[in-house]
Amino acid sequence: MKLWKKNTEPDKRIERYTVGDDFLLDGRLVRYDCEASIAHAKMLAKIGVLKADEAKKLVGGLKHIQSLDKEGRFTVRSEDEDCHTAIENFLIQTLGQTGKKIHTARSRNDQVLAALRLYYRDALHETECGLLKLDRAFASLKRKYGKVRYPGYTHTRKAMVSSFGLWADGFTEALGDDRKLIRFVAGWINRSPLGTGAGYGVPLKLDRAYVAKLLGFNGVQKNGIAVQNSRGKYEATMVHALGQILYDLNRMSSDLIFFSLPDLGYVALPDAFCTGSSIMPQKKNPDVLELMRAQFHRVAACETQLKNTAANLISGYHRDLQLTKKPVMEAFDATLDSLAVAALVVENIKIDAGACRKGLTEDVLATEKVYDLVKRGVPFRDAYRMVGKRYG
Amino acid sequence: MKLWKKNTEPDKRIERYTVGDDFLLDGRLVRYDCEASIAHAKMLAKIGVLKADEAKKLVGGLKHIQSLDKEGRFTVRSEDEDCHTAIENFLIQTLGQTGKKIHTARSRNDQVLAALRLYYRDALHETECGLLKLDRAFASLKRKYGKVRYPGYTHTRKAMVSSFGLWADGFTEALGDDRKLIRFVAGWINRSPLGTGAGYGVPLKLDRAYVAKLLGFNGVQKNGIAVQNSRGKYEATMVHALGQILYDLNRMSSDLIFFSLPDLGYVALPDAFCTGSSIMPQKKNPDVLELMRAQFHRVAACETQLKNTAANLISGYHRDLQLTKKPVMEAFDATLDSLAVAALVVENIKIDAGACRKGLTEDVLATEKVYDLVKRGVPFRDAYRMVGKRYG
Amino acid sequence: MKLWKKNTEPDKRIERYTVGDDFLLDGRLVRYDCEASIAHAKMLAKIGVLKADEAKKLVGGLKHIQSLDKEGRFTVRSEDEDCHTAIENFLIQTLGQTGKKIHTARSRNDQVLAALRLYYRDALHETECGLLKLDRAFASLKRKYGKVRYPGYTHTRKAMVSSFGLWADGFTEALGDDRKLIRFVAGWINRSPLGTGAGYGVPLKLDRAYVAKLLGFNGVQKNGIAVQNSRGKYEATMVHALGQILYDLNRMSSDLIFFSLPDLGYVALPDAFCTGSSIMPQKKNPDVLELMRAQFHRVAACETQLKNTAANLISGYHRDLQLTKKPVMEAFDATLDSLAVAALVVENIKIDAGACRKGLTEDVLATEKVYDLVKRGVPFRDAYRMVGKRYG
Amino acid sequence: MKLWKKNTEPDKRIERYTVGDDFLLDGRLVRYDCEASIAHAKMLAKIGVLKADEAKKLVGGLKHIQSLDKEGRFTVRSEDEDCHTAIENFLIQTLGQTGKKIHTARSRNDQVLAALRLYYRDALHETECGLLKLDRAFASLKRKYGKVRYPGYTHTRKAMVSSFGLWADGFTEALGDDRKLIRFVAGWINRSPLGTGAGYGVPLKLDRAYVAKLLGFNGVQKNGIAVQNSRGKYEATMVHALGQILYDLNRMSSDLIFFSLPDLGYVALPDAFCTGSSIMPQKKNPDVLELMRAQFHRVAACETQLKNTAANLISGYHRDLQLTKKPVMEAFDATLDSLAVAALVVENIKIDAGACRKGLTEDVLATEKVYDLVKRGVPFRDAYRMVGKRYG
Repeated sequence: MKLWKKNTEPDKRIERYTVGDDFLLDGRLVRYDCEASIAHAKMLAKIGVLKADEAKKLVGGLKHIQSLDKEGRFTVRSEDEDCHTAIENFLIQTLGQTGKKIHTARSRNDQVLAALRLYYRDALHETECGLLKLDRAFASLKRKYGKVRYPGYTHTRKAMVSSFGLWADGFTEALGDDRKLIRFVAGWINRSPLGTGAGYGVPLKLDRAYVAKLLGFNGVQKNGIAVQNSRGKYEATMVHALGQILYDLNRMSSDLIFFSLPDLGYVALPDAFCTGSSIMPQKKNPDVLELMRAQFHRVAACETQLKNTAANLISGYHRDLQLTKKPVMEAFDATLDSLAVAALVVENIKIDAGACRKGLTEDVLATEKVYDLVKRGVPFRDAYRMVGKRYG
Repeated sequence: MKLWKKNTEPDKRIERYTVGDDFLLDGRLVRYDCEASIAHAKMLAKIGVLKADEAKKLVGGLKHIQSLDKEGRFTVRSEDEDCHTAIENFLIQTLGQTGKKIHTARSRNDQVLAALRLYYRDALHETECGLLKLDRAFASLKRKYGKVRYPGYTHTRKAMVSSFGLWADGFTEALGDDRKLIRFVAGWINRSPLGTGAGYGVPLKLDRAYVAKLLGFNGVQKNGIAVQNSRGKYEATMVHALGQILYDLNRMSSDLIFFSLPDLGYVALPDAFCTGSSIMPQKKNPDVLELMRAQFHRVAACETQLKNTAANLISGYHRDLQLTKKPVMEAFDATLDSLAVAALVVENIKIDAGACRKGLTEDVLATEKVYDLVKRGVPFRDAYRMVGKRYG
Repeated sequence: MKLWKKNTEPDKRIERYTVGDDFLLDGRLVRYDCEASIAHAKMLAKIGVLKADEAKKLVGGLKHIQSLDKEGRFTVRSEDEDCHTAIENFLIQTLGQTGKKIHTARSRNDQVLAALRLYYRDALHETECGLLKLDRAFASLKRKYGKVRYPGYTHTRKAMVSSFGLWADGFTEALGDDRKLIRFVAGWINRSPLGTGAGYGVPLKLDRAYVAKLLGFNGVQKNGIAVQNSRGKYEATMVHALGQILYDLNRMSSDLIFFSLPDLGYVALPDAFCTGSSIMPQKKNPDVLELMRAQFHRVAACETQLKNTAANLISGYHRDLQLTKKPVMEAFDATLDSLAVAALVVENIKIDAGACRKGLTEDVLATEKVYDLVKRGVPFRDAYRMVGKRYG
Repeated sequence: MKLWKKNTEPDKRIERYTVGDDFLLDGRLVRYDCEASIAHAKMLAKIGVLKADEAKKLVGGLKHIQSLDKEGRFTVRSEDEDCHTAIENFLIQTLGQTGKKIHTARSRNDQVLAALRLYYRDALHETECGLLKLDRAFASLKRKYGKVRYPGYTHTRKAMVSSFGLWADGFTEALGDDRKLIRFVAGWINRSPLGTGAGYGVPLKLDRAYVAKLLGFNGVQKNGIAVQNSRGKYEATMVHALGQILYDLNRMSSDLIFFSLPDLGYVALPDAFCTGSSIMPQKKNPDVLELMRAQFHRVAACETQLKNTAANLISGYHRDLQLTKKPVMEAFDATLDSLAVAALVVENIKIDAGACRKGLTEDVLATEKVYDLVKRGVPFRDAYRMVGKRYG
């Protein structure tokens, strides 16, 4: 039964459309919603709105749901609309009157946000772990091949001498930027929305700081209007940060696809990482790199959706925001999978020192020749032109 | 078994990442792939590459798959990579040597495109039907309420007298534009890619026009490089067209949310179409309209992904394009569902003539007063200023 | 003076912000606005709202403005807000009472749209010319180098034998698609908005079809609400179509940057088309191709802005739409400049037949070997595996 | 003269296309480029590459350019390509041989990035100031009207009692989030790229930390490949952060447009901030708010362009990135102008306490009634249903 159910029976077709696949997506929020509800119940007991034993029962019921969920035995059904309803209904069924008290002093609005933020926190943490694992892969690559020199490119043209140590460090530094951004975002959004209700508070004196502390938030997001207006906005910045990781993986993939061009041969992917063609028997294609490259565009599209969904709307929750759930989950999945595969790739590519040496044709050294002249006192621009004459 | 399988065993983690959920998405392509393969087999017989009975067997096998699929008994498994592989493997298992001949003279590249275009054709046709159904809903609204006058707005401010006939016609005309665009796109892309292989043809003399005719295409897309480069591009324009429909539904939803503001009350949604709040018992929220509004942003994000995925890449297929499948399907689902629900909404809203009349305050008639003066010979700009004085 | 000026003096800072650079952008609309006003004045005379000599005076005044504009002597100043005001003010100054009648039976809303559509029509026509010129460049390339064979790529890996004839034809076919799309859009939007006022008509009996005919429109856009709601929407589709052209130029540039990699050398850009580096004297960079590639992303961003600006808003004009003017103009400029430069590039690149031949390594012929076996009766999939063995 | 000029004369049409309007945009970078060059020259002297008097001359020349620029007397012409060339050419003309030494140990690649980052730093600082000014405007609004209660909305439907104090605080908190994000970004990108050349270093032992210190950077961005790959990426995150500000202004504008609906009348814009209609004399339109709302979409489009331009490309500079300059500048302009106007608006709106009171209809209090029951011991969900019955 819907939480808001009154006399009228909702139209089934309308219901199916409004629920959409929210009930499926909510599968991964069950444990977070229980976690937040446990803190909420404890706080209600602390301020005297619930009796101690009521709170205890609710906490017990919620932990029960968490363990059912862990075993895959707690299902959110389409009729439940979402996990929040499924959980409240379960509590009412199992605890009777006490179950009807869990929703005291909150709205689904702040409740959903709390569950989401706990989920984001975990997922951002996993993202950091994925970044570190990839870091280690680059470090290992550097140990193996760091000194191998190859022609660095600008404008997709040979420019100056580079090395795979430089290349690995380039990504390590970029991923370090990403990690800082992820950490910033994780801290930025790590505040408790609970207690702001539907945006306009609840007519009870709550201890919001206590809930925040129990849930490991940095503090509370004070203003209810700010809380509601941050939905979509926080998500956009978070997914933007994920997008920056995928941007770097996109670049890395592009490099590896290029370096492993048979015409250059600087790098080789192991055969077990390559895919063939249904028609051309000689083909070994870098599909894995291409798909990693493409995930950037998917995550960028998620950001686009998140940013625009609630633009041009007035303050306060709108159901439009329900559609922000999926792109966030999609973006996390794409990022975490891609980070894992990227580490695997970086650990397993082989660098062909001979091919790299062959690539270091004489023109790659032109700038060094300019600087030989500079060191002998020729003004830079004159030295540049003197060397440049050889290249017409 | 993969079509391109050689000696090396692919790495399982890489495989899972590259296959992704393609095998699931492909469920809805099975029948189209069979349809295209049937035409392909017939053509191979016509040009003598297959014997008549070989073609017959293949056609039989493919029809068998189609009927299994209809009953939900043909599954594409993750190990199959995609429906094309699943189908070829099934033919080989059931027909032996003959099954191994179905892939003669084609690549998965042109094969995938053929199946997709047949799917697009059906889905675009359904889209047209959805548009027509919504048209009829507007016509019915007009019959019921066409003469009810309400204040038309510009800048979210009352402007001049409008009517629900004018309003309904406004959307009918906009949806008419959408239909023209959908039809154009349907024709634009309705050409057969089959026979262009991986972009560089097949070393056999094919009768491409015959296949095209069997499959109801307008003709062939001649050049193989053009065929491969059109992947993502055609999809972007098609999804753009779907987005234009959702743009109109976004506008319609925005209007209805506004017109049904209790403070205005021009329009009412039936209770069975409204959703309540978990905390505020008085609420009747237009969630269905809000979700319809939000679907625009989802489809727009799909277009964004489609447009960018293969930008900055050289000609020829790249596996990146695999990720274009999902946003297209998502965009069609969002469009078709929304069109159906929009028709339902338009058929069921009630217009409150009394509230509308009350909304027609005196200022809404200011422009008509200007024209009374104009008709009596006052130059327009002078008449405008004379009437304007009343409004300070 | 503003057309809508009343007693209150507008705040200067607010005014500067609202006018923005609209008055500058409007420079290119002056002649179109005059053209539309001339037709409007003639219609007003035809239906008896203006006397014949009044209309004649107005037409004379408008033609005078057009010739001043041609000589660069008609300036729209910031105080004028936009070209429409500048023109009406000029008519009032030079024609007195008659000038005050030009705005009879229209609003700036339909007036702006009329001027814009006339501008779009010209710009779309220029776009078609640009496409044809580029077509001719490809035809000339094909005449010169059509038979030169080079390795066609898929997955940025050598695939099968291609030729520059095939390559040129690939783009010719893609540009042909673009031309069809441009033509469709040109027809789709070529209807007269004049006479719908601010969206709710004008209380006079107008001859809208006559104005439409005078201005060369296909007919009228009937419904005023549809007219206002099409602002931004038509522009989005038009700029989408321009984006498709730039998508093809993006692909072409990507190909040429790749083919002219010194490591491959299939293609060479003339030195006069290359750019150097400030530090590396040997560099010849394909900057022109890189910028052409990048213009796609600029135009795609313009489309994004156009699509989203008025989403989530109710029907009727909103000033937000003023910001749709610039991205359209920017998109046209980017497209027309890029088409001209693309033609120049295609006419001037040189193809190195020797390097191409060298690129045709043995593996590029693997598929042909498969088909040699197929022709001798080996089932395709077996032949594929037999040849495939050589490639491990 | 171009820095990289050799024997071949560049094609004029190609040149015009590649330079684009970069030379105009560079006007605002002159002073930053000089600042960075001064630090560079000092460092070159410190490490003995320049003689003390050479460095002094260069510093003098650069300061001269800065003062010319301040007076608007230093122009970057199209032939100069960009400000960096104009400045080097000026130094060579005025200082002769010494001028030719300024480009020692750097590339335009790191030089451009240094100038841009100094510009970003200033612009981000201005953004922070704009945010603070708007904060003060909200504080002043709160002082004046903080206690006025009005109906808070969810789903664009009356929900619970709010107040203009709550509303002002909501934006203050959101803008506080924005300020944190801006500050993070300002720190994140505040590292010196100088000394990394074109991405592969310079064959001289430089004191990069010294330059960084002179220019007030937090330190150096170590790796040259990371430096080049951060172009576009840093900009995307920075413009994303600006977009978040405009998202809040979009929301604020949407609220004010809604609250000032004559049908509600909670808020009034001063007449001097309103715009009229060319046809409807009664109109007072909130154009300023509509344009502020629309700027969000413009800045969001800028971010889109920045994110996609260099995706799918290999490491190292590409000329595509030139097109990232304009959207950044456009985004800063839109943000700074909008913040200033937003403060003006917030300071000047009037709140109509009477209309607000009238808006507080009985249903807005339904939730409070539920809590009256809850306080008397009724379980929340039962209390909810009891009160809910009145609303059918």
